[in-house]
Amino acid sequence: MAHDIRIVTEAELRKAVPLDHAAVDVVERAFAALGAGNVVMPPILSMDLPEANGEVDVKTAYIPGFDGFAIKVSPGFFDNPKLGLPSLNGLMILFSSTTGLVQAVFLDNGYLTDIRTAAAGAVAARHLAPEVVTTAGVIGTGVQARLQIKAAHLVRPFGRVLVHGRDPDKAQACAADLARDLGIEADVTDAEALVRNAQLVVTSTPSRGPLVRAEWLHLGLHITAMGADQAGKTEIDPAALAAADLYVCDRVSQCAVSGELEAARAAGLMADTPPELGEVITGTHPGRTAQDQITICDLTGTGAQDTAIASHAAGVLGDAGTVIRA
Amino acid sequence: MAHDIRIVTEAELRKAVPLDHAAVDVVERAFAALGAGNVVMPPILSMDLPEANGEVDVKTAYIPGFDGFAIKVSPGFFDNPKLGLPSLNGLMILFSSTTGLVQAVFLDNGYLTDIRTAAAGAVAARHLAPEVVTTAGVIGTGVQARLQIKAAHLVRPFGRVLVHGRDPDKAQACAADLARDLGIEADVTDAEALVRNAQLVVTSTPSRGPLVRAEWLHLGLHITAMGADQAGKTEIDPAALAAADLYVCDRVSQCAVSGELEAARAAGLMADTPPELGEVITGTHPGRTAQDQITICDLTGTGAQDTAIASHAAGVLGDAGTVIRA
Repeated sequence: MAHDIRIVTEAELRKAVPLDHAAVDVVERAFAALGAGNVVMPPILSMDLPEANGEVDVKTAYIPGFDGFAIKVSPGFFDNPKLGLPSLNGLMILFSSTTGLVQAVFLDNGYLTDIRTAAAGAVAARHLAPEVVTTAGVIGTGVQARLQIKAAHLVRPFGRVLVHGRDPDKAQACAADLARDLGIEADVTDAEALVRNAQLVVTSTPSRGPLVRAEWLHLGLHITAMGADQAGKTEIDPAALAAADLYVCDRVSQCAVSGELEAARAAGLMADTPPELGEVITGTHPGRTAQDQITICDLTGTGAQDTAIASHAAGVLGDAGTVIRA
Repeated sequence: MAHDIRIVTEAELRKAVPLDHAAVDVVERAFAALGAGNVVMPPILSMDLPEANGEVDVKTAYIPGFDGFAIKVSPGFFDNPKLGLPSLNGLMILFSSTTGLVQAVFLDNGYLTDIRTAAAGAVAARHLAPEVVTTAGVIGTGVQARLQIKAAHLVRPFGRVLVHGRDPDKAQACAADLARDLGIEADVTDAEALVRNAQLVVTSTPSRGPLVRAEWLHLGLHITAMGADQAGKTEIDPAALAAADLYVCDRVSQCAVSGELEAARAAGLMADTPPELGEVITGTHPGRTAQDQITICDLTGTGAQDTAIASHAAGVLGDAGTVIRA
């Protein structure tokens, strides 16, 4: 039966759905629901296209209390830059949780994923970072590195950020952008100085080896490791995970196969089941219990965040997009 | 990077993509590729929404030689009829196999699934039914029952069809539609007479118990069982499967969990690995080797068919649909 479906482009979404407190709050609701145990979130569907050096992932989750659920398709085609195209693309589809009818198609080329991923960083910082953060640090210089610092700044309004990247020019550009956009001091430094001098560190790289060493940890530090999202990727020394007072997963089942927990367990560490971010939000787990503790949060990305951000987008879009009766 | 995406409605697709030889041929190519073993087809992503009596399935497949791959989302919300809405809906998205960019969004509400499912029935009949079919039969009276008979008629132009359904009025209506649309004789009868008098039988029901008994089988019969597509569903007596000269799956891994093979193996029968339809098409398996053999083909529905029909649709659409730059 024909019904109205809203088709929304990346440009329209960028205008209507900024990284703001509302986006952080809706993603926090998704994690709280995950923590309460009433989200239906099937394993990620993943397909390789070896001839094109490509892969595609599909994520979804049903969260009770949300009117809709999202299905997100994320293709990654790693030869695209040779063609002048970005590697990552994709779209989200929002369905009614009551009837299954398609409500909206977000042709976002990954933009909503960027926002919901950054928002998860803010949720982690809100619930795990020390109350006072004067200096933050980010390892990584890409789009998501920038967004992570902007998201963290929403919940911990630090006056200084340190940036580290393998390419000094990119690190300098990232620092300049953050200084301008947030109106704060921003400096480029090495990874060790960054970790030692910040109270809040975000790692946002595709690294396959540890970037943060255990001996750099210090009292009153929180790290959000959001780069690892695939088997073999890791950013944090397993010894650092073991040394922290608290290690928290977005989803244990995902972190164990594609997050920091994978490498740590391969090294014979972290055999116990860690708590999840949602359990900290709901209070099932106490989270950080002293300002001088060391905490690490491991974010691999969940379908629940996709359902949250797509639902949020639908609510704030107003008349944006094209309505097609189909 | 913004690029053109074609958005196509169900009405536009119904006009541009009929059930015809071209649709059958492209689905046959998909099965041939499956039979050759070079299709990447991950397990179906499936999510239950118990509070809404709903479920959603996502299928995909990459077929070398096809320019695109489809991701199909099929929601089934079984309380929808109370709201005056169909239970089944959904859409297909066509991506470039080279870049992963979204090429087209088919807001088809399940129409392309109907066509690719019927086309698979024609492929099964083309490769497994006796060469001469004068009478076909269909158990089931829904949209797909009608399409299956139309599809079979493309490859075996029989002059008579027998129809059986639990509801005599629906069976009568189905027979009348088929008589009118195909210009053939169509009669309503019971299941036993139907099977005994037809050379080609299609079962197209959501049955959870056998509808076709082993003792009704006769020389020179082909059955396509396409109703069972979920654990617990079955249409054919396990003894009939065992008694046939040849039992063929669309995909063994799927038939074993959601097709006729599931019930047969639960009954202690059919322990050997059956051939797949694609192997019959490519000649790896000889298929029917005599006109008087009894053959059964079990269709559960594959992502490869979705990629095939979506690619076909993109090729025949011409200017249909709305182009959105996103």
